Amino acid sequence: MNVSTDLYQRKPLPAGFLDDARTLIGDRLQTGEAIRLQHGSSETHFDPVLPDAVAFVHSTEEVAALVRLCVATDVPIIPFGAGTSLEGNVTPIAGGLTIDLSEMNAIIEVNQEDFDCTVQAGVRREQLNEYLRDQGLFFPIDPGANATIGGMASTRASGTNAVRYGTMREAILSLRVVTPDGKIIRTARRARKSAAGYDLTRLMIGAEGTLGIITEITLRLHGIPEAISSAVCSFDTLKGAVDTVVQSIQIGVPVARIEILDDQQMRASNAYSKLDFPELTTLMFEFHGSERYVREQAETVGEIAAANGGGEFRWSNLPEERSQLWKARHEAYYAAIGQRPGAVGWSTDVCVPISRLAECIVETKADLAVSAVPSTIVGHVGDGNFHVIFAIDPAAPEEMREVQALNDKLVARALAMDGTCTGEHGIGLGKQKFLVDELGDAIDLMRLVKKAIDPRNLFNPGKIFQL
Amino acid sequence: MNVSTDLYQRKPLPAGFLDDARTLIGDRLQTGEAIRLQHGSSETHFDPVLPDAVAFVHSTEEVAALVRLCVATDVPIIPFGAGTSLEGNVTPIAGGLTIDLSEMNAIIEVNQEDFDCTVQAGVRREQLNEYLRDQGLFFPIDPGANATIGGMASTRASGTNAVRYGTMREAILSLRVVTPDGKIIRTARRARKSAAGYDLTRLMIGAEGTLGIITEITLRLHGIPEAISSAVCSFDTLKGAVDTVVQSIQIGVPVARIEILDDQQMRASNAYSKLDFPELTTLMFEFHGSERYVREQAETVGEIAAANGGGEFRWSNLPEERSQLWKARHEAYYAAIGQRPGAVGWSTDVCVPISRLAECIVETKADLAVSAVPSTIVGHVGDGNFHVIFAIDPAAPEEMREVQALNDKLVARALAMDGTCTGEHGIGLGKQKFLVDELGDAIDLMRLVKKAIDPRNLFNPGKIFQL
Repeated sequence: MNVSTDLYQRKPLPAGFLDDARTLIGDRLQTGEAIRLQHGSSETHFDPVLPDAVAFVHSTEEVAALVRLCVATDVPIIPFGAGTSLEGNVTPIAGGLTIDLSEMNAIIEVNQEDFDCTVQAGVRREQLNEYLRDQGLFFPIDPGANATIGGMASTRASGTNAVRYGTMREAILSLRVVTPDGKIIRTARRARKSAAGYDLTRLMIGAEGTLGIITEITLRLHGIPEAISSAVCSFDTLKGAVDTVVQSIQIGVPVARIEILDDQQMRASNAYSKLDFPELTTLMFEFHGSERYVREQAETVGEIAAANGGGEFRWSNLPEERSQLWKARHEAYYAAIGQRPGAVGWSTDVCVPISRLAECIVETKADLAVSAVPSTIVGHVGDGNFHVIFAIDPAAPEEMREVQALNDKLVARALAMDGTCTGEHGIGLGKQKFLVDELGDAIDLMRLVKKAIDPRNLFNPGKIFQL
Repeated sequence: MNVSTDLYQRKPLPAGFLDDARTLIGDRLQTGEAIRLQHGSSETHFDPVLPDAVAFVHSTEEVAALVRLCVATDVPIIPFGAGTSLEGNVTPIAGGLTIDLSEMNAIIEVNQEDFDCTVQAGVRREQLNEYLRDQGLFFPIDPGANATIGGMASTRASGTNAVRYGTMREAILSLRVVTPDGKIIRTARRARKSAAGYDLTRLMIGAEGTLGIITEITLRLHGIPEAISSAVCSFDTLKGAVDTVVQSIQIGVPVARIEILDDQQMRASNAYSKLDFPELTTLMFEFHGSERYVREQAETVGEIAAANGGGEFRWSNLPEERSQLWKARHEAYYAAIGQRPGAVGWSTDVCVPISRLAECIVETKADLAVSAVPSTIVGHVGDGNFHVIFAIDPAAPEEMREVQALNDKLVARALAMDGTCTGEHGIGLGKQKFLVDELGDAIDLMRLVKKAIDPRNLFNPGKIFQL
């Protein structure tokens, strides 16, 4: 997608900037084109825009020093984690300095008794869970990609476990942040809850780096459940699948994950992940608890599924079957794109009240059915959140326009149902016009906050909204 | 407690203000001294300060009209719900207009399938739960007092159910707010989660009315569990009680409530609520789930309690026994004050990482034991949150000073343990110096936000921090 460059005419870096930055971090300041391209590209449909330089930082103090330099010299600053965001959230459209936090990947402390840990922003979620496993703990937020915790905080990520464990909004106790005035603050203490002043933690979560740079995160953890089981069930009708979810939640079953994959996605996933599931609308479940309680949950949901026209309820407590199932779910995006060799992916994201979910997906599928662009639907159905993944032919510009029109229609539908234009991917570059449709005058309040905290508009400029 | 009046010299209302306000809401603008005293007094130790007038509003549009009038004429505006806050949060120290929202008490809609509802800010939590009961739903946040939902939002309240269901931070999906520019905004849609821009919802939650006036709240609800049971258990040692809590959570038992009451509180509660519990450190539990699962949870916790020196584990699934137990807990504050006829109450509030809770309470009890002022301890122990309730002789100014010193010491101890100076009561007037100790430079960021949104400092001025 082309980004308007009118608003963001790049200025050359001021004389001496690179030398000054090298004084701070030595040859961890990089200006080679390959590195810059890597930090200006996205996994999806956004055209690359290169930063002027990339700083591989090793400490909060280094970030603060670079922030002070950038602010003193009017250079834009873009924080970067794993580069797995989907709405152009870290594309440096005004140029400037990308701060790559991936080498700040230390797990600083784990407080087992308190179920919390503090990590540097560049720690990745898989790394964290491998580290925690021996202590009987886990970090539940799982957006699919092996993202950094800092990036997940900045986009308010969620994913497959959110129906039970919440999103990054609930998972974070405290942040260490470098603010645009170059100070290092901590947004809260390590207590589980607090009523002490404005919720700066939540202000920074989902701000996509526009209000400061998150360098450390204190996270809530959970005990690894005594037992985990999974189940898969196919449905002839989408409504039967969604009704199964709604009724399971209504009756109070604390399902850990409930994912929906449509027939198109099941076809793609069978091919990509070497599976043999029926190519029908499918629910994947995971249950957490004691041995007895996990079985009870699965039995209850199995009965509900049967009453809603579900097929065989394939229940399993074997770790290998479970990991095969969730590997397929994690690979869904690549499976969807992989249907069409050389395709460019575009994954959109809406979230609606669950009572409207079946209707929203059915109407969307009718639109997709008459499109020439292959697409699949996957969703965190317990939250009312789903994605359409398009596989676009990069040589056919009319396909990009068609997907834009389909996305416009999908988001308008979600908003008409009192939903949101993004459940978890953020606004970035791609969803700005929809944010206006969604929140109207409330965006003025966001602008006031942005201008007060970052008066020179240097922190990830041009993201979320236009000033 | 005396409030400094140097910073908040009252200005008389501008000529014509009362007439203009009456044009907007007629005789629901009140200036009688009794009404003003009621809106300037607190349930605790803060000296009354009277507003110049009180507006009993009936709609968001009326609030917006009054806000525009106040801003145009430089008159302070203080939102008021049930007046049950504990840190002087609604004391109108600069005078001005108190906006009483208690008559905005309509339940606007309940979406049973989506587990949410939208209410006006003046709805009280007991009223809401009575209304929801027939639909099989409940709203779990229970701070003890029968507060308004708007007030609970503004102080980021929590209470006895937070260990399982979270606090107001997690319970709110969206807010309708009148902002200082007189506009009416909605902070989010009704979707269960969203990554659409800055988290204005969480910015308003806990802002104590300093950034705008909340007039409607969309809340997450929960299904009434199939079964609810409760249990009480006494312990010879405080450590045994706290270890029981930590181990129960560690093993993953999803206890709905775990409350601690110390020996002093049990003595007071036995007298006040006509009970015959042992006058020892006591835990009160509530378990939610299916019949079978509730029994399993209670058995597990009972075994853990026995291993930690707990006495008889009095388990019950009878509604009348349960309501007797929780009635005693809800009356704890009045029981504590009632120990000393005519006493003035002071309830303080800290929250620490749970690994430090036993130590924090033990050290605090040692301080309390040598004080002349009667006091009790109650706490939401699953969160690491506890209160000391003092019953102060109003005729003995030295007692007020002694409690101030004890409070200083308690908060310093909690902060040294990486805790917070308030888990749920808010900062108001009473905790401002502690907020500085807790968050330091981060308060500058709060000030930037406040000045940007309320540049004339008219919204509940003088609360949370000094500008």
